[in-house]
Amino acid sequence: MPPFKKYLFAPGPTPVPPEVALEMARPIVHHRTPEFSAVLDQARQRLKPLMGTEQEVLLLASSGTGAMEAAVANLLNPGDAAIYVNAGKFGERWGRILTAFGMAAHEVKVPWGNAVMPGQIEEALQEHPQARAVLIQASETSTTAVHPVREIAAITRRRDVLLIVDGITSVGVFEQKMDEWGIDALVTGSQKALMLPPGLGIAALSPRAWARAAKARSPRFYFDLNRELKAQRDEHTTAYTPAIGLIYGLNKSLEMIHSEGLPTVFARHRLMARAAQAAATALNLKLLAAENPAPGVTGMLVPDRIDGSRLVRYMRDVIGVTVQGGQDQMKGKLVRIGHMGYVAPLDILIAVGALEMALRREGYEFHSGAGVAAAQAEIASGA
Amino acid sequence: MPPFKKYLFAPGPTPVPPEVALEMARPIVHHRTPEFSAVLDQARQRLKPLMGTEQEVLLLASSGTGAMEAAVANLLNPGDAAIYVNAGKFGERWGRILTAFGMAAHEVKVPWGNAVMPGQIEEALQEHPQARAVLIQASETSTTAVHPVREIAAITRRRDVLLIVDGITSVGVFEQKMDEWGIDALVTGSQKALMLPPGLGIAALSPRAWARAAKARSPRFYFDLNRELKAQRDEHTTAYTPAIGLIYGLNKSLEMIHSEGLPTVFARHRLMARAAQAAATALNLKLLAAENPAPGVTGMLVPDRIDGSRLVRYMRDVIGVTVQGGQDQMKGKLVRIGHMGYVAPLDILIAVGALEMALRREGYEFHSGAGVAAAQAEIASGA
Repeated sequence: MPPFKKYLFAPGPTPVPPEVALEMARPIVHHRTPEFSAVLDQARQRLKPLMGTEQEVLLLASSGTGAMEAAVANLLNPGDAAIYVNAGKFGERWGRILTAFGMAAHEVKVPWGNAVMPGQIEEALQEHPQARAVLIQASETSTTAVHPVREIAAITRRRDVLLIVDGITSVGVFEQKMDEWGIDALVTGSQKALMLPPGLGIAALSPRAWARAAKARSPRFYFDLNRELKAQRDEHTTAYTPAIGLIYGLNKSLEMIHSEGLPTVFARHRLMARAAQAAATALNLKLLAAENPAPGVTGMLVPDRIDGSRLVRYMRDVIGVTVQGGQDQMKGKLVRIGHMGYVAPLDILIAVGALEMALRREGYEFHSGAGVAAAQAEIASGA
Repeated sequence: MPPFKKYLFAPGPTPVPPEVALEMARPIVHHRTPEFSAVLDQARQRLKPLMGTEQEVLLLASSGTGAMEAAVANLLNPGDAAIYVNAGKFGERWGRILTAFGMAAHEVKVPWGNAVMPGQIEEALQEHPQARAVLIQASETSTTAVHPVREIAAITRRRDVLLIVDGITSVGVFEQKMDEWGIDALVTGSQKALMLPPGLGIAALSPRAWARAAKARSPRFYFDLNRELKAQRDEHTTAYTPAIGLIYGLNKSLEMIHSEGLPTVFARHRLMARAAQAAATALNLKLLAAENPAPGVTGMLVPDRIDGSRLVRYMRDVIGVTVQGGQDQMKGKLVRIGHMGYVAPLDILIAVGALEMALRREGYEFHSGAGVAAAQAEIASGA
C-alpha cells in the first residue's frame, strides 16, 4: 500500500507551495500582451536581489542545464580555453558542455565533498594563461559542498577572465552578491529555492560578459542571450514562446520570498542545514562535506555495511519521504536531504525521523530519536 | 474596466482544460522515480498516434523553437547544404537556425498565404543536389496556410535527403502520418493542440534520421537527441531535469484526446475551420490562405481602410476576446482566429461575434450577425 501522505526532501525538484500551484492553474495569458509583459518585468525585477545584481535577469524556457549551456555558448568561442572546477557531477557537466561546444576544457579536479581552494584557481590560471573563463558551482548539489565563489571572483576580476557560476542550488538559498563580488554569469533554475516545477532557466551577465556575448561566435539560436536581452529588456516579452505558466508561478513565489524577506529566507535555510547537520552528528553519520556544507542540502554518508540505495528506496516507497541518494561514485553511499524553498525547519524532523526508521530497519545501532532530538534542539535554539 | 470573462483564440498558446490545470497543480514528483517514469513512458507512447509514428517520441524542456533547433543540430553538420521553405515567419525561422549553426541555407521563397508547390522542392533539389535536408512547416502559423508535406515527403524519401517538419500547429490538429509518408523529423510544442502551457518541446526521428544523428558533428549538449534517446527509451527518465509538471499535464491532455478519439479530434478542428471560413465569406473578408487554409487557425484579411492592430486590441482589451493580428509584413492587415486544442465548434460563435462587434465599431459595413449565422449554419450541418 502506498504511503498515505508524501514528503519531498530532494535537492530539487522541491515542493511547490499551494499558492504557486494555484497561480499556475489560472487561465493562460498570451505572451504578446501588456498583461504578460507586466508579470515578466516584475518577475525579472524581483529576481535581482536574489542574485545580487542590478543587471538584466533573463528567463529561458529550459531547465538549469539549458541556462548553463547558454552561458558557455554566449561567452566563449570554439577553441577558447576555459578552466572548470570538477568537484562533483555538476562540475563535470561544465566540462562536458565546454567540450561539446569545442572549447579547450581544463579541469581542476577536487575530491567529492571538498571545496576548491582559491589557490588552485590561481595555479590553473598560471598554467593556462590563455584561459578566458573559470566555471564553477556556487553549491555542488551532488556532494552538498559550497565553493568559495567570492574569493575566486577576487582572482578572476583582476584578469580578463570571466567567472561563470552555476547558482542552481544557491540563488535564493544563500546570499549571492553577483555585482559586488564580480561574478560574470550567474545561472539558476526554477525547481530549487524558487519553489517552482522545473522548466525555467535564469541567467544574468555582467557588463564585461555582455561585451563578450556581443562578439561571441559559438553557434546558438534558442539560447542566444543577445536576442533575449533585446526581447526581454526592450520589448518586454521573450524572443520565443516563454514558459508562461511557470513565469506567472515565479512572480508569485518571488512575491512570497520578498514578503518573508530575503535575510529571513537565508536564515531559514541556514537553520535547516544546522538542524540536519546536528541530526547527522547525533546519529554518528559523517557529513560528506563536513568543512563546507551547503545551506540547501545536507549529505550524510551511509554507514559501511548499509546499502544506501535500499535505504533511500525504503524511505520513499514505504515511509513516503523522498530524499536522494548519491550519484556516480557516491551511489549507495550517501543520503542527501534537500532543504530548499518551500521547506520549514520543523519539516526537518520528518526527514530525520524517516531516516532513523530506515536506519533502524537496516540494523544500524543508535539511540532511537537522537537525530530528531538534535534537530529539534537546533531549531529551538535558532527560533 | 477589464472584461468580466476572457476568451483565448490565439493560434498558441491555447486554453488549458481545467482537468489539465488541476493535474499540473498536484504535488511535484521527483523525476528519478518509478512513478515519474510510468507517466513519462505513457505520455511518450500516447503521442505516437498524433505524430503517426512507431518511433521513439522524445520530450524536451523547451518551447517548440528548441525542438526545431534540436532537429537542425542533430541532423546536419556545419557546412551542410539544406533547403528550407520560407512561406512565413516560421519558415524564415528555419533559415535563421540553419544559418546560426553554420549550414548553407537555400531558401524556397513562397508568397505569404500560399503553399509551396512540390515542383518547387524538386527544382530546388536539382539546383542544390548536395542538399542534405528539406525543412518546412506542416502548417505555417503566421499565414494560416498548410503545406503539402505528404507530397514533399514522396520527393525526399527517394533521395538521401531528410525531410524535417515543424508540426507545431499540425500535430494533434490534423493527421500526420510520419512513418507512412516518410517524414524524417517531426517536432512540435505543448501549447497548441496539446492543450498545455508552453514549455515542452517534442521530437521524433525516422530510422535514417537517427543514423544521421549518430554521426552528426554540430555542437549540442542540452538538445543532444542521442543522449535523450538513451535516457528516455532505456532509462525511462530524461537526460536533464524535465518539465515535470508539464509532462504530467501532457499525459492528462493526451488521455482526454484519446478518449475523444483522434478522428473526432481532427474532425472537430476541420469543422471549426469551416465555420470560421464561412463566417469570413459571409462578412466579405478574404482569407489569406484561401487555397489551403489550416485546420487550426483561420487568417482573415482586414478590410483596407481598417487598422487591424487596433481591431485586435479592441477585441482583447474591451471585449475580452484574444485573437492574433498579423506578424511582420502582415502587421495590421490580418486577423488570425486560432481554433486548436481545448476549443469547441460553438466557441467560434464567440470569436466571430466579437470580430463583428469590432468591425462594426471601425465603420465596416456588413449585415450584422451574418458571420455568426454562417458559422452557426456550418456547425449545424457538421454536427
